[in-house]
Amino acid sequence: MARPLALTEQTFIDFFARCARPVRPRPAVGIGDDAAVLDLPPRSQTLVTTDLLTDGVHFHAEWTTGALLGRKALAVNLSDIAAMGGQPHSCVVAVGFPRSTTVAYTRGIARGLADMARSHKVALVGGDTCAARALFVNVTLIGLVEKGKAVTRSGARPGDHLYVTGTLGASAAGLSLLSGRSRPGPGIRPTASPSCRRRAIRAHLDPRPRCAAGRALGLTGLATSMIDLSDGLAQDLPRLCAASSVGAVISRSALPIDRLATALFGPDEALHLALCGGEDYELLFTARPDCDPMVTALARRLNLPIHRIGQILPRRAAIRTVDNKGRYRSLPAGAFEHFPR
Amino acid sequence: MARPLALTEQTFIDFFARCARPVRPRPAVGIGDDAAVLDLPPRSQTLVTTDLLTDGVHFHAEWTTGALLGRKALAVNLSDIAAMGGQPHSCVVAVGFPRSTTVAYTRGIARGLADMARSHKVALVGGDTCAARALFVNVTLIGLVEKGKAVTRSGARPGDHLYVTGTLGASAAGLSLLSGRSRPGPGIRPTASPSCRRRAIRAHLDPRPRCAAGRALGLTGLATSMIDLSDGLAQDLPRLCAASSVGAVISRSALPIDRLATALFGPDEALHLALCGGEDYELLFTARPDCDPMVTALARRLNLPIHRIGQILPRRAAIRTVDNKGRYRSLPAGAFEHFPR
Repeated sequence: MARPLALTEQTFIDFFARCARPVRPRPAVGIGDDAAVLDLPPRSQTLVTTDLLTDGVHFHAEWTTGALLGRKALAVNLSDIAAMGGQPHSCVVAVGFPRSTTVAYTRGIARGLADMARSHKVALVGGDTCAARALFVNVTLIGLVEKGKAVTRSGARPGDHLYVTGTLGASAAGLSLLSGRSRPGPGIRPTASPSCRRRAIRAHLDPRPRCAAGRALGLTGLATSMIDLSDGLAQDLPRLCAASSVGAVISRSALPIDRLATALFGPDEALHLALCGGEDYELLFTARPDCDPMVTALARRLNLPIHRIGQILPRRAAIRTVDNKGRYRSLPAGAFEHFPR
Repeated sequence: MARPLALTEQTFIDFFARCARPVRPRPAVGIGDDAAVLDLPPRSQTLVTTDLLTDGVHFHAEWTTGALLGRKALAVNLSDIAAMGGQPHSCVVAVGFPRSTTVAYTRGIARGLADMARSHKVALVGGDTCAARALFVNVTLIGLVEKGKAVTRSGARPGDHLYVTGTLGASAAGLSLLSGRSRPGPGIRPTASPSCRRRAIRAHLDPRPRCAAGRALGLTGLATSMIDLSDGLAQDLPRLCAASSVGAVISRSALPIDRLATALFGPDEALHLALCGGEDYELLFTARPDCDPMVTALARRLNLPIHRIGQILPRRAAIRTVDNKGRYRSLPAGAFEHFPR
């Protein structure tokens, strides 16, 4: 049996500070003072994002490990900085622990955070912690972007092509496996291998933010608008369209549906997961139509699939999908909602 | 009866964004994109701090209002930036709501945050929110300080004088009234007026961070070290001493015990509250002994009492208090601990 939490606030902070120390670059003043002191380079703009993971809402503590949770808490913020075309720099972390949390789990969170920070050269510069009724981790990440180069959600124009990095649906397939819930329908295919299951669950618990791709799309100025897919295409595309005051059409057959989702749940459910199933942390972006060759070249250089999935239209065209036979449909309604009625 | 929460995540974010919009200065890109974009001035260093308030640990939702909670969530972070000698700049906010939270309460939080932000010229640039088992508010505040001017906890040297702004113990007295708990002893004095009670409770629920004093102490270079009193002198002075590798002696008779604490609980309990009671958010700082006249002049200019309460000693002298008759005592042990055993 794992030991229940016997940490004081100070001992957790000390452990967190020990994990953070080897992470480079180090701030001028780091953990242990009233505030951290950072030397941000002049001539850059500063990016700030904050993302919250709460037990029972964004994750289930018993489905994951402390280390994977720590990694993911930073990863979802890295994805936001990537979606602005920025470079991550430093982060602070607030963690709330219920009394039942084991020491091993809390240390795992600190190690996972430090591990993800190290691989992205992000300094862990501060934090706060306290007892809480449910476990939560809130990371605030500071990033940098060259002046005027930030890629917002609002730059898409009618005629722009719509692209997505990587594949869609694997994370949602993993979540379906973990929760034992799948929509009424075919359920898990008997032919799905244990390796498929493991990889889908891994995609959900340990997402890889598209930092290099986001940064390249920002630096080259290729992306006219960008958003990361945290809540699913069906929810995030409307956000991008609303910010840009445009409509869009998506070709259903062009969607890069993850093979794991198809192998596990069959093509119809996999399409649904790719459209509505959040947490892929891929980048959805637009580019001028004459930039297709540059996008292709970039994908090759990054060794990352980038698929053209549709086109931006005037606002009055709304947001729809179209199949091979030219049949239009509205986007399926809503994906994830934290306040279900 | 107040209506229970019928907000979606998006409608809360929209309301929060509406409250944030009139707050100046506005960021280059604010709420509503993947990250905020800030133009921080070159030649400054950047400060970052994060502080968490959790229902049942740092506050009780039924003892306060949404607006006061929103104000305090930012105030405790402003206090940290003040303690570094910095100028607050921008903040992001993460809020977790239980289902039972009323719409009025959540809107109060947003309004309180915006109100406090406005009065300190802090931009509200982003946030995240979700359902949670207990209400919490986590603010991350970014500040600025001239290069090399940040006042850390580690600069105190033997011989330095030790000062504190304002008075101590009112917040803890207010908390005692709210919780109906007071230590074994005299209890509330029958002579304490309702106005005393109201003002002590206000001191606890709506603390005023010492932004102007912290900034002046940083800019003038008067403070050799500084910390804000969030957990109480008995806990925060040892932190400053540990960071500076020094000891200290405090004169008990020199402590600026708040009159409300004395009026409510008598002199002995008031002394205890001033030493151990936390959440005063006053500044504890050190200065070279020949700077006494400058500290006095600064106090006059700021129209804020600043009391010299003791002296920094070599580490081997430990941390003690001394009374009028030259009797030494150890500091009373520990104040607030978020993980009681």
